[in-house]
Amino acid sequence: MTPPAERGTGTRLADDARSGSRRALSRLLTAIESRTPVAEEALRLLYPQAGGAHVVGITGPPGGGKSTLVAALVAEARRGQRAVAVLAIDPSSPVTGGAILGDRIRMQQYAVDDAVFIRSMASRGHLGGLAAATAGSAAVLDACGFDLVFIETVGTGQSEVEVAAIADTTIVVQAPEMGDEVQAMKAGLLEVADLVVVNKADRPGADRAAAQLRSMLSLGEVDDALDAARPRPKRPRVLLASGLDGSGVPELLRALDAHDTARRRDDRPHAARIARARAQIEGILADRTRDALWSARRRSETDALVERVAAHELDPYAAVDLLRLSL
Amino acid sequence: MTPPAERGTGTRLADDARSGSRRALSRLLTAIESRTPVAEEALRLLYPQAGGAHVVGITGPPGGGKSTLVAALVAEARRGQRAVAVLAIDPSSPVTGGAILGDRIRMQQYAVDDAVFIRSMASRGHLGGLAAATAGSAAVLDACGFDLVFIETVGTGQSEVEVAAIADTTIVVQAPEMGDEVQAMKAGLLEVADLVVVNKADRPGADRAAAQLRSMLSLGEVDDALDAARPRPKRPRVLLASGLDGSGVPELLRALDAHDTARRRDDRPHAARIARARAQIEGILADRTRDALWSARRRSETDALVERVAAHELDPYAAVDLLRLSL
Repeated sequence: MTPPAERGTGTRLADDARSGSRRALSRLLTAIESRTPVAEEALRLLYPQAGGAHVVGITGPPGGGKSTLVAALVAEARRGQRAVAVLAIDPSSPVTGGAILGDRIRMQQYAVDDAVFIRSMASRGHLGGLAAATAGSAAVLDACGFDLVFIETVGTGQSEVEVAAIADTTIVVQAPEMGDEVQAMKAGLLEVADLVVVNKADRPGADRAAAQLRSMLSLGEVDDALDAARPRPKRPRVLLASGLDGSGVPELLRALDAHDTARRRDDRPHAARIARARAQIEGILADRTRDALWSARRRSETDALVERVAAHELDPYAAVDLLRLSL
Repeated sequence: MTPPAERGTGTRLADDARSGSRRALSRLLTAIESRTPVAEEALRLLYPQAGGAHVVGITGPPGGGKSTLVAALVAEARRGQRAVAVLAIDPSSPVTGGAILGDRIRMQQYAVDDAVFIRSMASRGHLGGLAAATAGSAAVLDACGFDLVFIETVGTGQSEVEVAAIADTTIVVQAPEMGDEVQAMKAGLLEVADLVVVNKADRPGADRAAAQLRSMLSLGEVDDALDAARPRPKRPRVLLASGLDGSGVPELLRALDAHDTARRRDDRPHAARIARARAQIEGILADRTRDALWSARRRSETDALVERVAAHELDPYAAVDLLRLSL
């Protein structure tokens, strides 16, 4: 239940964000990350207004130049007068997080452009709720009128790959010299790709890397273990681009648009939207479970049961039976 | 509810595993990993029998020689006639998984030793339930009479560090030449350490690395953001060892025993046992949520709600309200 004092804040932030207040939008995204009642109130209002944006996931091994490519895509989209938001999911490590922050500086040219909004989200501490928080944030940005929402994640962890997979269109980025990592990518990354980009196409070996990827993909070596139900082109297209000099970027944006158009032509909601809806519902249920366990009212009862399980006086299933949760 | 046909299998496997059948034990651990009703039945029986083992987590950056050190610890524990189990949590990548499998070969000498049991667990696909599955597996091994249960994880992801942190005693391992990674370790790894081991002590720089770590730890540079509530020695001890030639390994095992003795002297269950109990309860609730959503009886209702959310006809909170789950 939303406490009365909180009621209204979510509504006000939602209204202000929709009217173009970047400050309200930022506060709303913070609320969604921390899963407060304000976020629930705002999302209940904003969610029905969303659905128009094209949500694009960008992932790949570290060093592929994802941030630079995103910056180039943002510039290209702005040339077409489109409003663009970027959600950069930083890995938990402050070390790599710092490097990514460095890339963010490239984007500072947009500080005065109201049609560009850039936001970093911490992946640490979400404990499985990252997909839900990302989906909620994308819905807010969508409802606030952004045409394109880029979700940038480092494709190294299960949760990061999951996040990329809930986008309408998922781009997997790699650099030419990453030939040896193709094996690693097969493990989980290429499975979620709608488009594969060999970035840094100005470097030697880019054409060969693209050819290698194309032949691998055409041999059907990529299995669909992660997400067998998701319909996608049998073979993701492989494109060459350079985030640094911008070559191939207009073509990449056109390929994104084509994928989006094909998706919208379907009668039923696209499978990625289903995945996003599921992630949000499951995230809310997880929140409610946590609330039910650790709310002020239940906390001491839960603590007592946990202590009995820790002392092996009670098995954990019996403890759950005793809790009798309703969500 | 356990279907009638299944009833009995868990009980039989639990009995057989307790009587020393390694085949039954393996099947039980598989059931726990896949979270079947057999696992629930068996764990309800075995859990009260557990609590005697010392559960030791071993983590650290890749390349620190964790597997070799575990092998040396197993050998040392066997010299003391103790029964030892190893749960090796493989990272999701089949590439690195392969390398770890290579290390497993070192352990083949124990194929005919009934007091040593080695098991690999996939971290992929657990989606946050890894801590719960690991805690359940440790409880089964504990109930089956293993004195020491080693949980070996690569300290690169949030979930891997979490898993190491639910052990009674957590060892963080690094190699001497990893000085540069100290920064990275500070981010999350050292916070969970009860003991820090500079492994490969035969290599140059080991003493210097240990001194560096000791001075860093004594300066209190390690903050306890991850797990502030967990009581532990203010400064984890830093030890030198070599998994390869075995030097320092008897001292390490003695340090482990000392930590275990100190823990058992407490009146209340150790915080790590509380964390393990919580992980199991939360894992069971997550399973029941999934069952409640996707059981044959509920599935079509859930699917219909998810589709309405995906089409933005309904917000995800309203969908959850309509589900009215009882766990």
